Amino acid sequence: MPEVRLLPDDILVEAARGSTISEAARTAGIGIAHPCGGRGICGRCTVFVEGTPVLACNTPASQSSVYIPDAVRLVGQDILTDIRTYDPKRNRLPRAERVTVTLDPPTLLDPASDSERLCGALSARYGTGARIEASCLPDLPGCLRVDGYRISPVIVHEDDGVCVLSFQRGPLYGVAADVGTTTVVVALCDLMTGYVLDTVAVPNPQAGYGADIITRIVYTEETPSGARTLKEAILKALSDCIAVLSARAGIEPERIPIMTVAGNTVMCHFLLGIPADYLRREPYVPAARAYPTARASELGLPLLPCGRVMILPSVASYIGGDITAGVIALDLAAKDGINIFADVGTNGEMVLSGPGFMAACSCSVGPAFEGSGISCGSRAVRGAVDNVYCREDRLMYDTIGGPDTEPKSVCGSGLISLLSALLQKGVIDRSGRFASPENYFTLASDVTITQTDVSNLIRAKAAIYAGMSVLVKQLGMSLHDIDAVYVAGGFGRGINIEHAVNIGMFPPLPEDRFRYIGNTALAGALRVLCDRAVDAGEAAASITNIELSIGNEFMEEFTKACFLPHTEMGSFLAKRSDIHGIHYSGRR
Amino acid sequence: MPEVRLLPDDILVEAARGSTISEAARTAGIGIAHPCGGRGICGRCTVFVEGTPVLACNTPASQSSVYIPDAVRLVGQDILTDIRTYDPKRNRLPRAERVTVTLDPPTLLDPASDSERLCGALSARYGTGARIEASCLPDLPGCLRVDGYRISPVIVHEDDGVCVLSFQRGPLYGVAADVGTTTVVVALCDLMTGYVLDTVAVPNPQAGYGADIITRIVYTEETPSGARTLKEAILKALSDCIAVLSARAGIEPERIPIMTVAGNTVMCHFLLGIPADYLRREPYVPAARAYPTARASELGLPLLPCGRVMILPSVASYIGGDITAGVIALDLAAKDGINIFADVGTNGEMVLSGPGFMAACSCSVGPAFEGSGISCGSRAVRGAVDNVYCREDRLMYDTIGGPDTEPKSVCGSGLISLLSALLQKGVIDRSGRFASPENYFTLASDVTITQTDVSNLIRAKAAIYAGMSVLVKQLGMSLHDIDAVYVAGGFGRGINIEHAVNIGMFPPLPEDRFRYIGNTALAGALRVLCDRAVDAGEAAASITNIELSIGNEFMEEFTKACFLPHTEMGSFLAKRSDIHGIHYSGRR
Repeated sequence: MPEVRLLPDDILVEAARGSTISEAARTAGIGIAHPCGGRGICGRCTVFVEGTPVLACNTPASQSSVYIPDAVRLVGQDILTDIRTYDPKRNRLPRAERVTVTLDPPTLLDPASDSERLCGALSARYGTGARIEASCLPDLPGCLRVDGYRISPVIVHEDDGVCVLSFQRGPLYGVAADVGTTTVVVALCDLMTGYVLDTVAVPNPQAGYGADIITRIVYTEETPSGARTLKEAILKALSDCIAVLSARAGIEPERIPIMTVAGNTVMCHFLLGIPADYLRREPYVPAARAYPTARASELGLPLLPCGRVMILPSVASYIGGDITAGVIALDLAAKDGINIFADVGTNGEMVLSGPGFMAACSCSVGPAFEGSGISCGSRAVRGAVDNVYCREDRLMYDTIGGPDTEPKSVCGSGLISLLSALLQKGVIDRSGRFASPENYFTLASDVTITQTDVSNLIRAKAAIYAGMSVLVKQLGMSLHDIDAVYVAGGFGRGINIEHAVNIGMFPPLPEDRFRYIGNTALAGALRVLCDRAVDAGEAAASITNIELSIGNEFMEEFTKACFLPHTEMGSFLAKRSDIHGIHYSGRR
Repeated sequence: MPEVRLLPDDILVEAARGSTISEAARTAGIGIAHPCGGRGICGRCTVFVEGTPVLACNTPASQSSVYIPDAVRLVGQDILTDIRTYDPKRNRLPRAERVTVTLDPPTLLDPASDSERLCGALSARYGTGARIEASCLPDLPGCLRVDGYRISPVIVHEDDGVCVLSFQRGPLYGVAADVGTTTVVVALCDLMTGYVLDTVAVPNPQAGYGADIITRIVYTEETPSGARTLKEAILKALSDCIAVLSARAGIEPERIPIMTVAGNTVMCHFLLGIPADYLRREPYVPAARAYPTARASELGLPLLPCGRVMILPSVASYIGGDITAGVIALDLAAKDGINIFADVGTNGEMVLSGPGFMAACSCSVGPAFEGSGISCGSRAVRGAVDNVYCREDRLMYDTIGGPDTEPKSVCGSGLISLLSALLQKGVIDRSGRFASPENYFTLASDVTITQTDVSNLIRAKAAIYAGMSVLVKQLGMSLHDIDAVYVAGGFGRGINIEHAVNIGMFPPLPEDRFRYIGNTALAGALRVLCDRAVDAGEAAASITNIELSIGNEFMEEFTKACFLPHTEMGSFLAKRSDIHGIHYSGRR
C-alpha cells in the first residue's frame, strides 16, 4: 500500500490501493470539502502533490507528499453541525409524509373524478382542505388503479390544508438548511423517523461579493443585477450541498418533497433575489418578514420540482429566521423562568423569554470575534489558538490542530480567553490599557495582540453586554433575574463562559446558568421540517422586537460596558427581584 | 403596383409595393393563417407562386399567380370567433386588474416590512387575504419608493384572496382560449374595458394523433409518453396563438397576467398531460373535474411567468369546461322559463335549465355533421355546399366561396338541409330509404349522397333528438315546454333551423324559439376572464349530470328518432304542460 504524507500536518497514512487522496486524508481524520459530491466538477478540493494542483476527489493516493490547504478542509464542521438542541424523538408529525388511503371504486352512479375521490378521503382524514399538485395529476389515474383504489400519496401539510405532491414509493427524506452569512450548512433528514442522516457545510459563496451583509448590500446597490448574482450564488451552493448529501446517501434528490431554510433577514432576501437596500437605511425596513413558500422548481433547486421550500420568517430586520429557528429549537416559549437566547456573530441577537412573553434585540458586534480587524485574529482554522488560561502564573493556550501545531493566530473563543487572561495577569487594566509601555503582548512568535486589538475586542464584548442589559431593563428586570443563558454562535470549538464573564461580555451569573447550544438555526429548521405542530409564523410573531437605535439607552449601557468587566460591578450585587409572579404581555 | 392573381379564386388584386402575399390576399378578403405571427417560422402559410412553395407571410407580392390552398385559409373563422353572447359592458370586475394604493411610510416606530404594508392595504381594501408572488418581491422595495409609497400593483383575485403578480405599468391584457378537439381559438382582451382586441384560430395540432378524442386517448394508451406529446402539441398551439395576438397588438406577451381556458374534459386533461384512459371505459371517470390554477411558467406559456392560467371546470366526463363556459356565456341559470343549450359536434351536449335547476346530458353524435363518414361530406371549406333548399320544384344550393365556386362537397349545415330537401321532394321516405332503385342522389357533378350516408346522418340527428328527449323527460317535462333552444356548434356558417326541425333533429317548436349563439366556449372563457363575480366552479356544480348510459331510455328514444322526422309526430300535438309554477330542486 502506498504511504502518503499529509502536509503541513506531516502525518503519514497508508492508503488502500485505488483510494483517492480524499479517502486517504479521511483515514487521518482530515475531512476535505466536496461540494460537487466528489464528481470532479467544482474544483473546491484542490490539493497539491509535490507542488502540482490536483483534485483530491479523483486523484489516486500515491507514494508522495500532499499539501492540503486550510481552505479545503472541513474545519469547524463539528461546531457548524452541532445540533444538540434537535431531538428527533420529539417529532411525531413530519410536515411532509406518505399516507395510505383506500377509496371506493367509482361506479356509474358514483362517478366522482379520481381527484375528488382522493381529496375527499384526505380531507376527511385530516379535517382540512385537500388538493393535488397539477404536476402529479397525470400519475393519479394509473396509480389509483394499480392496487385497487388503495393509494399512498406523499402529502405536505400547509396552512390551507394538505396537498398531494407525488405518488413515489420508497423512503422519504427532507432537507434543512442554515444559510449563514459565512457558512451554509445543510442536513438530510429521514422524515419518517426525524433522524438526521448526514450534514454538509460549505462556505457561503456570496462571501466573494462581500464578507459581511452590509458589504453585500452595497454590492447589490452598485452592481446591475447584483441581487440576481447573489441569489444564484447561494442557490448554487444549496444545490451543491443537496447533490452531495443525495450522492452520499444514494438517493435521488428529485424525490425530496420538502426543504426548510433558516437564515438572517438579508440572507433570506438574497435567496429570493430581493434587494436589501432599505435594511441598511433608517428606518431599516425589510421587503418582507415572511416569505411565500416556493416550489423547488421556482428556485431551481434539484428537489422534487413541486417540492416545497419553506423559508423561516424573520421577527424584524435584524432578528432573522435564524433566530426564529433558534427560539423553536430551544422551545424557548415553553421554558420556565427567565431565559436569554444569545446568538453572537457579527451581529449579536438576543431573545429574552419569560412567562407569557418573548422580546428580542439585535446589536452590531463587529467582526472582532470572527477574527477580522484583530491583528492576530482568524476564524477557527488549523493553527488558531482557541483557548488561553493561566496556570501557575504562566499563560497556557490550546491550538486547533493539537499541541504540536504551531500557533499562528487566535480565533473568537481564544480572543475572549486571551483578554480574560491579560486582565487577570494585570497585563492590561480595567480600561484595557497595557500596563507596560510596549502597548502589545506577544503570546507566541507569530501571535501578538496590540492596544487597538484590545480596544476592538472591548467594543465587541460591550455591545453584547449592553444589548442584553437594555433588553432586560426594557422589560423591567435586572440581569440577576436571568435563570439561564443559551449561547449560540460559531466561537471556534465553543466559548469559555468563565472567561466571557470575566471580561464582562456576559453578566456575572453562576456558570451553570450558561449553556452552549451549537447551531440552533439548523436545529430549528430541522424541527420545522419534522414537526408540523411547530408554527414558525406564530413563533416569529410572538417575539416583540426592541429597537436599540431608538433613544440613548443602548449607547449609555455600551459606554458603561466599555470597561473590564464593567463600570458598575456593584449593581450585580443588588437583590434579585421577584419577577416570576408578574405577567408580561407580549405579541403571543 | 404589381397585380397578383389569386388562385383558384381567380381574383386579381393590386398589391401595394413591398407588401407580402398575405397582405395582398387580405385585400381580397382571403385571410391566411399565421400561427407564428408572420415571422416565417411555422411554415403554415405555404402558398404556391407559379408552382413553387413560398411563405405568404414573408414573400413579396409580385406580378404573378398565387395558388392559396384551403388548408392555409382562415375559413370558418367568422363562426369560430363569433362571440355574440359575450357583452363586454357586462364586465365590471376583471379577474386581474391594476389597483393604486397609498401606504404610510415606515418609521422606526412602525417598521413593518414593505410586503406587510402593501398586503395590509390590499387586505383592507378588498376584505380578503392578500399576498405577493415571490417573483415580484425583488421589485417591491424599489417600486414602493419611486412615488412616495404610492404603488399600483397588478393583482389577481383568487378564491383565497388577492395576490400581487407584478408592478408593470401600461395597458393590461388577458387571454381567453377555446381549446376544441378540432380547432383552437384564442382571444386577446383589454382587461380594463372588457373589449376583445383580436382573435386567432388554428387547427388543434393534436389532430395529427387522432381526429377525435377516442382515437387520441387510444394514442396515449399505446404510445409511451403519448400524453406528454399531446400536452406539448396543444401548448405549442396556444403559445403560437399568444405570439400572433401579441405581435399584432404590439404588446409584450410576458406582461399578460391571466389566461382562461375552456375545453372539453379530454382536452383539459391533455392540456395538463393527464392520460384520459378511464374516460372511455365504464364508469367513465375523469382524473379531475376541476383543475388547479397553474402559473404560466409551469405550462411553459409565454405570458407573465407567475401569470395565472385558469382552466374552466367540467360538470362530468362528457360535459366539459366548454359547456360550463356556455352556461356562463348564456347566463343560463338566470334565464326565465325552460331553456335548452345544445352544443352539437361529434358529441352532443345539452343543458336544460328551469327555475332553480340545471341538468345536462351528453350523447355520441358521430362525425357525420363534421363531414366525416359521409361520401360527399367535408368541413366548412371552400367549395362545400352549406345550404340546400327547394325553389319552384328545383333543388338549389349555396356554396362556400360564392355562386361561381364549383361545389365539391357538403358540410354539416348543408347535409342537414340536403336531408330535409330530399325528404321534402320525396327522394327518400320517412325511414330514409331512396324511392328510386339507384339508392343515391347526385346534387352536382362531384357531389353524390348514398344510402349509407343518409343512414349515418339519420343516426346522428336521432342521437341529438333522443338526448334532448330523455333530458326533458327525466325532469318530468315534455319538449313542448321548452321556451328557447340555444344552439352552438360549428355548422359551417350556421345551421338552418327549419331544415333541422324538418328532419327531426330538433323538436318541432316555432322557429323563433331557436337561437344560434356562435362560440360560447370562447365567450364563456372571456366572461370568466373579465368578471370575477362569475364563479365557474359554482356554475359547474349547479348542473346535474344525467348519465344516458344508465338504463334503456336513451336507446328507446334513439330508435324512435331514427325516422324522418320521428315515429311519434302525434305526441308533439299534446297540450303544453304548465311547468312554470313548479319548483325543481337542483344542485344549485
